[in-house]
Amino acid sequence: MQLSCPMPKLDFDKITLGHGGGGSLTNKLLESGVFDLLSNPHLDQHHDGAILELKGQVAFSTDSFVVSPIFFPGGDIGELAVNGTVNDLAMCGAKPQYLSLSFIIEEGLLMTEFWQVLVSIKNACEKANVQVVTGDTKVVERGKGDQLFINTTGIGQILPSANISMQRVNEGDIIIVSDVIASHGIAIMSIREGLEFESDIKSDTRPLNGIIESLISEFEDGIHLLKDPTRGGLASVLNEVARDTRFGVYLEEKSLPIDEQVKGACEILGLDPLYVANEGIFITVVNSDIAESVVEHLRKNSNTKNAAIIGEVVQDHPTQVVIKSKIGGRRVVNMIVGEQLPRIC
Amino acid sequence: MQLSCPMPKLDFDKITLGHGGGGSLTNKLLESGVFDLLSNPHLDQHHDGAILELKGQVAFSTDSFVVSPIFFPGGDIGELAVNGTVNDLAMCGAKPQYLSLSFIIEEGLLMTEFWQVLVSIKNACEKANVQVVTGDTKVVERGKGDQLFINTTGIGQILPSANISMQRVNEGDIIIVSDVIASHGIAIMSIREGLEFESDIKSDTRPLNGIIESLISEFEDGIHLLKDPTRGGLASVLNEVARDTRFGVYLEEKSLPIDEQVKGACEILGLDPLYVANEGIFITVVNSDIAESVVEHLRKNSNTKNAAIIGEVVQDHPTQVVIKSKIGGRRVVNMIVGEQLPRIC
Repeated sequence: MQLSCPMPKLDFDKITLGHGGGGSLTNKLLESGVFDLLSNPHLDQHHDGAILELKGQVAFSTDSFVVSPIFFPGGDIGELAVNGTVNDLAMCGAKPQYLSLSFIIEEGLLMTEFWQVLVSIKNACEKANVQVVTGDTKVVERGKGDQLFINTTGIGQILPSANISMQRVNEGDIIIVSDVIASHGIAIMSIREGLEFESDIKSDTRPLNGIIESLISEFEDGIHLLKDPTRGGLASVLNEVARDTRFGVYLEEKSLPIDEQVKGACEILGLDPLYVANEGIFITVVNSDIAESVVEHLRKNSNTKNAAIIGEVVQDHPTQVVIKSKIGGRRVVNMIVGEQLPRIC
Repeated sequence: MQLSCPMPKLDFDKITLGHGGGGSLTNKLLESGVFDLLSNPHLDQHHDGAILELKGQVAFSTDSFVVSPIFFPGGDIGELAVNGTVNDLAMCGAKPQYLSLSFIIEEGLLMTEFWQVLVSIKNACEKANVQVVTGDTKVVERGKGDQLFINTTGIGQILPSANISMQRVNEGDIIIVSDVIASHGIAIMSIREGLEFESDIKSDTRPLNGIIESLISEFEDGIHLLKDPTRGGLASVLNEVARDTRFGVYLEEKSLPIDEQVKGACEILGLDPLYVANEGIFITVVNSDIAESVVEHLRKNSNTKNAAIIGEVVQDHPTQVVIKSKIGGRRVVNMIVGEQLPRIC
């Protein structure tokens, strides 16, 4: 894909402080190809703000991405930044439409690396069918940042038949996970700090708005809740569900879909996959009578082909997540305290 | 103002990596008082995204703030982050309504400093009549950031009688600046790198949405363009006007309002005030027949009491900004190349 977007010829090969000054160097950087790459009628106005036509209920979500390293197996910070906000909007039951894009660049970042991230952003936007409509570029001195941080903030209109909220979760509702867990965290871990596995574990970063849209169109308000278990992993989002609904969450360990290589890596590293970050999966809490059909629907899509029922919302152990292990024992799964892996997203 | 928002008692005095992990430490940080401080019905949902009701034309703008130091005469990074995005929306002719707020914190930031910034954010939101409705918190290792970076992204509905755009600028239009120039940049400079002046020069950071709203309500589409000359100063925005409209911009140096202390500091430092950053002023390009009334209207407001006509849009020297000096000579004012002062906002 990058072959179609060759880097323009420039008279600089590294980002300098001046590129963040708001003067002609900033313009040069943006007009050297950034604007062309991400071109759309809103962005083409080159204003400080974009003017959008919106109507009705709109979701609004923000995320800053500080992942280290910025390139990792299966993706990079640019793709992650687009997909992360696209997915947060999708989890609100919205159709993601517009993104803002803000860079904090450490002086000295190679222009080739910045260009590669920009091309990833372009490709991720096309895949998710969203537009970058406004942006900002700041540069900080060497040693005051770490290559590149990206903030994306997104807007999307709520899908007409969506009715997603914590308040809709009820006793007896079924909890489904859309695909295998723990891939993103292990992919980052695999290349960080010298650790390497004889494997090709890749980040699961991907846009989920397409499958969410088809799910809501098919099952409408049978879908009660959507959540993406990113930082803090599955354990943390399920604890949020238990805490905020005052119900209990019951899980079955044997039902959790996990790639064998990822599972092996977790064992070697002593990590519990329930706490490892994901970037391309979601959990949904649904009416029990449609649960099987939802799983069937998800399994038809290549991004959710390992969808599985993993648990239930119960009256027992209110505000707690309890997991039944493969050998039958039960234990409480707490929210993660700090973080297993810093700077995972 | 801060007396009314005492910092809650906490069992930590510094931000650690775990506070950015998305687990219970992150929750502890947010629930220790952050959510209470910024409370409003949207934020109180504690979701990853806020659901807003919008209709019609909406402005959408983003800015990351990396100012160093984070506390400076006349303000801090929190106040700047709110006002900066509020003002970008106001310059689109919009009424700022909702902000997202995203922190990138360097490990080790004192909780007392973070709290002080949060209180500033709260106060600035109240002053500008906007709400923080969604947010994000990331923490990076010591030496990979610089205390605190903040992204704010804002949404605001376009004012019904606003019609603001580059396309509306015409030959003969009058250029007005709302108040004294160069205060923000000089205030930052005065405390950075050991430089100090025997003065009390303060940043001009302030919300401009109130005065913009009253201006548009009074003069409607007589107001052709609004721009805030932040990074790159007055010279850079006027060059943008000249470049994008293909007209010339003619300025008179003797009309430029500038505080005597700021002027003196510029002379000592060898800085041209035309290139020094501002955070609380704007330029407007208006129909010539209302120019005097606009200035009169602005002068009634304490935030724009030094408003002045500074120049005109002309057919001569297309795409160039030309200034007539106090002794009568004329020179071209170019866009700034890099930046005079890095990390000014």
